[in-house]
Amino acid sequence: MCITLCSGDPTMYEKYWQQMGDKTKVVINGWQFISYFSDVSRVCWFLEPEFANSIIRLHKLVGNAITEDRYIVVGTGSTQLFQALLYAVSPPNSSEPISVVSAAPFYSSYPLITDFLKSGLHKWAGDAYTFDIDKPYIELVTSPNNPDGFPREAVVNKKQGILIHDFAYYWPQYIPISSPADHDIMLFTVSKSTGHAGSRVGWALVKDIEIAKKMTEFIVLSTIGVSKDSQIRAAKILQVVSDSHQYKVDFKEGQAFFEHNYNHMARRWKQLRDAVNMSKLFSLPDFPSGSCTFSGRTFESQPAFAWLKCKGEIDDCESFLRGHKILTRGGKHFGGSEKYVRISMLPRDETFDQFTERLSSINSS
Amino acid sequence: MCITLCSGDPTMYEKYWQQMGDKTKVVINGWQFISYFSDVSRVCWFLEPEFANSIIRLHKLVGNAITEDRYIVVGTGSTQLFQALLYAVSPPNSSEPISVVSAAPFYSSYPLITDFLKSGLHKWAGDAYTFDIDKPYIELVTSPNNPDGFPREAVVNKKQGILIHDFAYYWPQYIPISSPADHDIMLFTVSKSTGHAGSRVGWALVKDIEIAKKMTEFIVLSTIGVSKDSQIRAAKILQVVSDSHQYKVDFKEGQAFFEHNYNHMARRWKQLRDAVNMSKLFSLPDFPSGSCTFSGRTFESQPAFAWLKCKGEIDDCESFLRGHKILTRGGKHFGGSEKYVRISMLPRDETFDQFTERLSSINSS
Repeated sequence: MCITLCSGDPTMYEKYWQQMGDKTKVVINGWQFISYFSDVSRVCWFLEPEFANSIIRLHKLVGNAITEDRYIVVGTGSTQLFQALLYAVSPPNSSEPISVVSAAPFYSSYPLITDFLKSGLHKWAGDAYTFDIDKPYIELVTSPNNPDGFPREAVVNKKQGILIHDFAYYWPQYIPISSPADHDIMLFTVSKSTGHAGSRVGWALVKDIEIAKKMTEFIVLSTIGVSKDSQIRAAKILQVVSDSHQYKVDFKEGQAFFEHNYNHMARRWKQLRDAVNMSKLFSLPDFPSGSCTFSGRTFESQPAFAWLKCKGEIDDCESFLRGHKILTRGGKHFGGSEKYVRISMLPRDETFDQFTERLSSINSS
Repeated sequence: MCITLCSGDPTMYEKYWQQMGDKTKVVINGWQFISYFSDVSRVCWFLEPEFANSIIRLHKLVGNAITEDRYIVVGTGSTQLFQALLYAVSPPNSSEPISVVSAAPFYSSYPLITDFLKSGLHKWAGDAYTFDIDKPYIELVTSPNNPDGFPREAVVNKKQGILIHDFAYYWPQYIPISSPADHDIMLFTVSKSTGHAGSRVGWALVKDIEIAKKMTEFIVLSTIGVSKDSQIRAAKILQVVSDSHQYKVDFKEGQAFFEHNYNHMARRWKQLRDAVNMSKLFSLPDFPSGSCTFSGRTFESQPAFAWLKCKGEIDDCESFLRGHKILTRGGKHFGGSEKYVRISMLPRDETFDQFTERLSSINSS
């Protein structure tokens, strides 16, 4: 049977939430959330106040982003927010679409999303390292990066650049939190922080009110707001995550969310590195060690994806692994080399165990 | 204080759902709906099977659409599905964008949604009545129509046309159901059928598998699927709507959903017509009487919006009503005359009562 690790489906988190039992149970009555509107006094009028509060509380606790003097815009996942941002920051009346770039290897959906409607507002212009035109551009900075897990900073650094910081993975189970991120435009998502991908909820922290307004306009035209049911559920979940660290007495030993899932990721990375060492056909990136302001721990990144390289004569790593019934996403999709594949580190335990077992048994014979 | 009736916020329905008490209560546990995936055996793999079943059951009960030999595609409201359809049926490699038309007066969001990303795939081409080019085109047929409430059929009727039927309001509280709709592409939404606009859930019934696949592709690129929480909640609500008609013994007298809300709409339309008659400055459309296959009743349409005309010398009806602190959406937004405004018939009772009282007191003095 094939082991599917192409998408980043975060089912690893199911077990933790099962252990939490009733704590994150949400009850919604038939007469609630009928209206399109959540709070008309906000720029983003479809943002549920409860969800906004839970976001601010969690960022303050973790220390991974500044929320002061920012507008919060909620989206149907950070995928929608990314598109809302492209719309919000692209010059509306330019004679040609603005260039959108990101340093390779970059998230494989960025080029597809930027271009699929053949928009006259923006167009994908590829690897930021090779971008060298003196015109306005948008640079996507994903840190830590999807697919390779490294921390990132902007690389083009020209005057007319607009930066979008995608912090989907800037959480202490994956990487040491070095300081609160303090950029003009920052993206986060529930999918990768708590694992609730099925709820389709993300948020943006945005300094400029005009950008927040145009993002809101995009989301109104795109979907007339964001599911209230999912916002209410996400609010509850983020509150429980914060509670699990701030009111430990109400939780069992080792159940603080980031602690528990840091340990889970650490075990998985050790297991993967052991398998890679056994096989000798592959290699993995080495991450610098860093001190985490949240946990006080010093550790090497343990990303949500592994950027695995096939060594030696294997040129197409995706096909090679497919031959061994391991389905991954090849490096080419990320603007990188075919010698690499991206592997999800967030499947259920059974799948991950099967995967490392199968990987370790692949050898050159 | 201003009375706001611009948007179609369906808060009228809150009261009915309050009366239903616990019947539509939904409980979601923390470990549920973590995954992006709902059912990988379906073309639309993020559609929750429970929701699909509830849709089929309800259409069969009401008799307003054929579901056999159709693919169901779920969307973040029918707004997203409309965009997924534009993407799915626009020729991908044409040298120019395909024309999108609808007979005036048309839903004010159609032109905005079609053009806001300056897509190279499709462009708004205005009133279908004036479209006379022998090239491929997309015609949006909204029946009953938003804003004016009349039943609609395609008007261009040329060979190269692709028809999208928007049936958001084809439900028996608004209009007699004449026969099950049987078109290639049909759109429905929870917002206008049960009132749950805050959940952002709609569905398309689509004959052609290739269109269903491309719609799914669009929704993946746009939002990676649709909130599971809202799908589960919508499933429960649609089931209770069906139950209220099929298992009447479990419900109080007069609580069958369409019966109850037919009566509510009938009272509101009578109240509005009385107010209009009192004032003498306005007029309303007269609807033909029709027999409803669902209820067996013969009645005149009682739409979710009133398309109100200012008589005589009042040329800008929106401004005139604003002067009397009644906020509506003017006819120009719908490709129509400024002598008309669209008024939501679905606010809460207090708002509707205030509105009709204020309207009836406006006179030419």
